[in-house]
Amino acid sequence: MAKSYETELPLKAFGWAGTDTSGTLSPFNFSRRENGDDDVTLKILFCGVCHSDLHTLKNDWGFTTYPVVPGHEIVGVVTKIGNNVKNFKVGDKVGVGVMVESCQTCENCQQDLENYCPKLVFTYNSPYNGTRTYGGYSDFVVVHQRYVLQFPANLPLDAGAPLLCAGITVYSPMKYYGMTEPGKHLGVAGLGGLGHVAIKFGKAFGLKVTVISTTPNKKSEAIERLGADSFIVSNDPEQMKAATGTIDYIIDTISADHSVLPLLGLLKLNGKLVTVGLPSKPLEVPVFPLVGGRKLIGGSNFGGIKETQEMLDFCAKHNITADIELIKMDQINTAMERLSKADVKYRFVIDVGNSFSSL
Amino acid sequence: MAKSYETELPLKAFGWAGTDTSGTLSPFNFSRRENGDDDVTLKILFCGVCHSDLHTLKNDWGFTTYPVVPGHEIVGVVTKIGNNVKNFKVGDKVGVGVMVESCQTCENCQQDLENYCPKLVFTYNSPYNGTRTYGGYSDFVVVHQRYVLQFPANLPLDAGAPLLCAGITVYSPMKYYGMTEPGKHLGVAGLGGLGHVAIKFGKAFGLKVTVISTTPNKKSEAIERLGADSFIVSNDPEQMKAATGTIDYIIDTISADHSVLPLLGLLKLNGKLVTVGLPSKPLEVPVFPLVGGRKLIGGSNFGGIKETQEMLDFCAKHNITADIELIKMDQINTAMERLSKADVKYRFVIDVGNSFSSL
Repeated sequence: MAKSYETELPLKAFGWAGTDTSGTLSPFNFSRRENGDDDVTLKILFCGVCHSDLHTLKNDWGFTTYPVVPGHEIVGVVTKIGNNVKNFKVGDKVGVGVMVESCQTCENCQQDLENYCPKLVFTYNSPYNGTRTYGGYSDFVVVHQRYVLQFPANLPLDAGAPLLCAGITVYSPMKYYGMTEPGKHLGVAGLGGLGHVAIKFGKAFGLKVTVISTTPNKKSEAIERLGADSFIVSNDPEQMKAATGTIDYIIDTISADHSVLPLLGLLKLNGKLVTVGLPSKPLEVPVFPLVGGRKLIGGSNFGGIKETQEMLDFCAKHNITADIELIKMDQINTAMERLSKADVKYRFVIDVGNSFSSL
Repeated sequence: MAKSYETELPLKAFGWAGTDTSGTLSPFNFSRRENGDDDVTLKILFCGVCHSDLHTLKNDWGFTTYPVVPGHEIVGVVTKIGNNVKNFKVGDKVGVGVMVESCQTCENCQQDLENYCPKLVFTYNSPYNGTRTYGGYSDFVVVHQRYVLQFPANLPLDAGAPLLCAGITVYSPMKYYGMTEPGKHLGVAGLGGLGHVAIKFGKAFGLKVTVISTTPNKKSEAIERLGADSFIVSNDPEQMKAATGTIDYIIDTISADHSVLPLLGLLKLNGKLVTVGLPSKPLEVPVFPLVGGRKLIGGSNFGGIKETQEMLDFCAKHNITADIELIKMDQINTAMERLSKADVKYRFVIDVGNSFSSL
């Protein structure tokens, strides 16, 4: 008998799923596990729309299994806890990010780097106990307590949701690669969901922040709305030349294929270029600028649970949230189309809690 | 009137020069400046044959001006000092490495990183005061005291000479990128002039050292003669697979074009790949391994004077020298031919002092 998504697990769930590479989503009935002793169930209130959701929907990276319910920037309210759960109670506002399980025994897990566990289970599109994981474009989720974040009281639930992926994805490398020294000069390449949050972290760390973008008309927004100090149009040779050797660190959030040579040229001696976008083609890295300027190119994925909590608390303290456009669930296909054109300021967030209430 | 290399400066000098892209050298009369107040003159005793010498002779990098006298691993004895020179006296054994001048005012110079000074003057093939610099394949050299190294008493002059480029070029990045933590696992990619010295530094720092090479018959030498702990044949898929994720740092000394993807695969989480070879083509760097393993690719050129002195003293303390084949000056063309085939164990050094005595 064919497996039925609606009945393979005991709890009836509802969400929106992609069923093919078209990138469109439609209503989807499925099921979730009962809340176990170590589990927390949350009614989902908000879920950010990450660029990874779109990549996964379209199978851009080649590892999508359909149907897929995306969503890994989940904020909700706790509706049930297991017997072993001490740190959360019903009614708490909590978050769930990119992962919902890891082995807890490997070297990485033991260093609070579960995000690099070889047995990591992603919040959606991962095999899990014979079924699959389904993400936050849905009414509720059941998650082991270890992967649930406390949402600080003064952090808005909607504009705070994107911090769970976009936020930690830029915060973690900034900390790891030492891109936080006050007075230093940070370049943010690409002004989208990740980039606009990177500006805010940069300013909170006391850095001078320059946005590097192909789109001249983003300049006033970058500076006036988002707090950047300056702006370079990356395909203007004059501007790029003038900025040669002036930047200490660049966080490269561009997920489209692009050349890193011009970015390397902007870096000072000992400059660091950290890529967190996931272009599908390899970067072409000329050796002379690396060698001649003792520069490095590094990568980083999102972040461990401990660091994600630290990041949320940092955001609460510094009033950092994403700039969002709030949508209802049934607007998701239009939103995805706009996202594919980078037409969003700067993150769509689905008002999940008010999308399914009439059902 | 055409400029005469023999008479443009007051002191008659003699060396061997390349005059075209053939890569061959021939005897060459030229001239050098008088010893100024801040200068040290040294009679050259030994000069290492660096792979850069060959690249420059053949104009592989496109910035050679002929005639070129190569040589930047120079050991000699002081024959004259200027009035302002206090730290050297006639008879001292001294070294001169890759550079002979920098601006002394820029940020890099002021941090003892003259090797990254934008106005750096290389020991050969650099414009300098209307003439050019000529390197150590010659009878003597006049150098500003600031760029002269004290050669430790117990360091052999011949086998110590290659430390002035090969040595500092691997020592400096190992220090800068933190590749010195005892017990960690270092991979040395490429077993030539730089690679064989990197093994010795690795062992002196207390690391486990694995050589990664395309040439299986280098294994016994790497382990028995040079002290490596293990050896991976890089084009053996089984060996590469078995070593996946086992190495903390790789120092990539390969100057031929090559893929770094297999090397990245050998690295653990937070692994560092530092390239000090100078392949002419850009590296193709796939993003997923960088992001998924928080890995970095970094570069480094040679090192500042202060660090070069520190490195020489470290070598004296730990009995680190290069493994060399000593040649006479008139054997240089055969040596260059063998070098181009990587047929040398592991560095040619010219016995300059005994090559010109009959003239």
